[in-house]
Amino acid sequence: MKHALALAARGLGRTWPNPAVGCVIVAGGRVVGRGHTQAGGRPHAERMALAQAGDAARGATAYVTLEPCSHHGKTSPCAEALIAAGIARVVSAQTDPDPRVSGRGHALLRAAGIAVTEGVCEAEARALQAGFLKRVTQGLPFVTLKLAATLDGRIATASGESRWITGPVARRAVHLMRMTHDAVLTSSATALADDPDLTVRDLGSSHQPLRVLLDSQLKHRPDSRLGRTARETPVWLLHTAAAPDTARQAWQATGARLSGISANGPHIDLSAAFHHLADQGLTRILIEAGGRFAAALIRANLVDELALFSAGALIGSEGIPVLGPLGLTALAEAPRPRLVTTETCGPDILTRWRF
Amino acid sequence: MKHALALAARGLGRTWPNPAVGCVIVAGGRVVGRGHTQAGGRPHAERMALAQAGDAARGATAYVTLEPCSHHGKTSPCAEALIAAGIARVVSAQTDPDPRVSGRGHALLRAAGIAVTEGVCEAEARALQAGFLKRVTQGLPFVTLKLAATLDGRIATASGESRWITGPVARRAVHLMRMTHDAVLTSSATALADDPDLTVRDLGSSHQPLRVLLDSQLKHRPDSRLGRTARETPVWLLHTAAAPDTARQAWQATGARLSGISANGPHIDLSAAFHHLADQGLTRILIEAGGRFAAALIRANLVDELALFSAGALIGSEGIPVLGPLGLTALAEAPRPRLVTTETCGPDILTRWRF
Repeated sequence: MKHALALAARGLGRTWPNPAVGCVIVAGGRVVGRGHTQAGGRPHAERMALAQAGDAARGATAYVTLEPCSHHGKTSPCAEALIAAGIARVVSAQTDPDPRVSGRGHALLRAAGIAVTEGVCEAEARALQAGFLKRVTQGLPFVTLKLAATLDGRIATASGESRWITGPVARRAVHLMRMTHDAVLTSSATALADDPDLTVRDLGSSHQPLRVLLDSQLKHRPDSRLGRTARETPVWLLHTAAAPDTARQAWQATGARLSGISANGPHIDLSAAFHHLADQGLTRILIEAGGRFAAALIRANLVDELALFSAGALIGSEGIPVLGPLGLTALAEAPRPRLVTTETCGPDILTRWRF
Repeated sequence: MKHALALAARGLGRTWPNPAVGCVIVAGGRVVGRGHTQAGGRPHAERMALAQAGDAARGATAYVTLEPCSHHGKTSPCAEALIAAGIARVVSAQTDPDPRVSGRGHALLRAAGIAVTEGVCEAEARALQAGFLKRVTQGLPFVTLKLAATLDGRIATASGESRWITGPVARRAVHLMRMTHDAVLTSSATALADDPDLTVRDLGSSHQPLRVLLDSQLKHRPDSRLGRTARETPVWLLHTAAAPDTARQAWQATGARLSGISANGPHIDLSAAFHHLADQGLTRILIEAGGRFAAALIRANLVDELALFSAGALIGSEGIPVLGPLGLTALAEAPRPRLVTTETCGPDILTRWRF
């Protein structure tokens, strides 16, 4: 199952709207088939592993990180494929909460005389598939908030100088983070200030996540890096009714996809925006933005994980804060995410915290 | 030598003005004597180990974390004691930079026919004895700046609520930090705001570090926790000529020791203050104070190590910053301490950074 989980992880950021699943088929103590959900969500992991195993699948054990699907979609269900291949035993990490599956996959297998063991490495599998699970159960994507700051919580000097707070190892880790998310999302303030392109670079991968910009009034320029590259790598713009027609037309001409979202005061309603993105199939979103937008997301309870790069540097209180106002009235209200992992990135450290 | 270093560490915070040294005597592959510098600085480590070894020291090897002393002080030099005991070989981690020793200890041993190996585990020994080394070579103590903040670099809410940012494991680690420093130092702003006592509690130790308060105008109250306990555990007050006579007399009546230090504007001249503390024999000082004082120390280039407790919590930009203004004009001027260690303290993490 650990091996199946490692295979599953290869699909993160690429399989949406489907989950990134891994499958390993073992016969006579030997791995005869390995597979993971392919880019775009199919073929499913079980199909890939069965194809590799061929006749060796007969009487074998299949380890899958998620309950095999039971519904007829664009292809026949994986549960049926496992039965047809003569698999004798299925070990699964968790039930698929998708209402079209939800135990029916396991039931189909059992009805065909296959021995089924459920819940093996369930916690690891749930962590890996948190994006898919959250989308299916809550209609929201799993949101990772990336922040990079000095030890005293600053992201730039008073004059706005921020290149570079962190070192090249940390910046490379950010590109890997982008690659394992379905989309990278930023705010209009960051887009206007930094003109980012939000692409994955220098990792030897051709995969690019979607780029999403929340820009209520469409103030960002269509001739920006995002606008100029929207035909190569998709750009989704979320705006409100306050966006002028001329800006809409100019952005549409770049090839970007525009969606109107309800407003909350002068801003986009964040909850509505993220529900919309989950409706479109997105399961994992990486946020790269400034302190005000980060604080707004935390206030709206939309962040699942904080990935904090702490640079071995100090800027002092004149610097720009990594997080904007949270509006706390008492310390007891402070969000208290729990530590997941710590690692060093050259001279910097990366800590991950789960809300 | 690793064992001798571990023994040496037991003396940290207690041996000033002398270094915390460890000594292990090995005869026939067996440890026959172990010692470390005792509280107050004597007996020295070698004396303790020789006393334990007795006759077994004849022909044995002595491992010492610092060159044995060669000068006649309150006792005869340790080099002579090692010779008199019949030690055959001395393995030392480093030369003692004290001008009264500075190679003469090793030379004395060699002149008596003892084989001497120098520089074993020198980096570890230098790190352990950094306080002593800095005092002898620069006339300044080794300064550890303890900071405890949220992930966004805040130490309290806008209204000043700060109990508690970190959890009980981190707070206990602070008491251990106090115990391994010669003195705990705070500023008048922190003393006035928090009325701290700066003692070591709940660690089963009767040892207490000195308490040092930098209070240019002696604004802190003599009936504060520091004032009320000054006869049990020493309190040193550093002030400037701006301190009123009445305050001086009231503080003297508490049993605190007062020292006038030159001024730098309305504040104590920090460099003068720390030179004074080193002159008085202090080798290791822990700073527990607020963001402005911390920033002033960093600006004055007086901090050797930053011990940063990061609580898994967020307060937002209304909160009080962990570090005051550093007055940078460019990012290239930002202090860049390097990571030494990372550890978890319950829900919090402690990172140590060396300047």
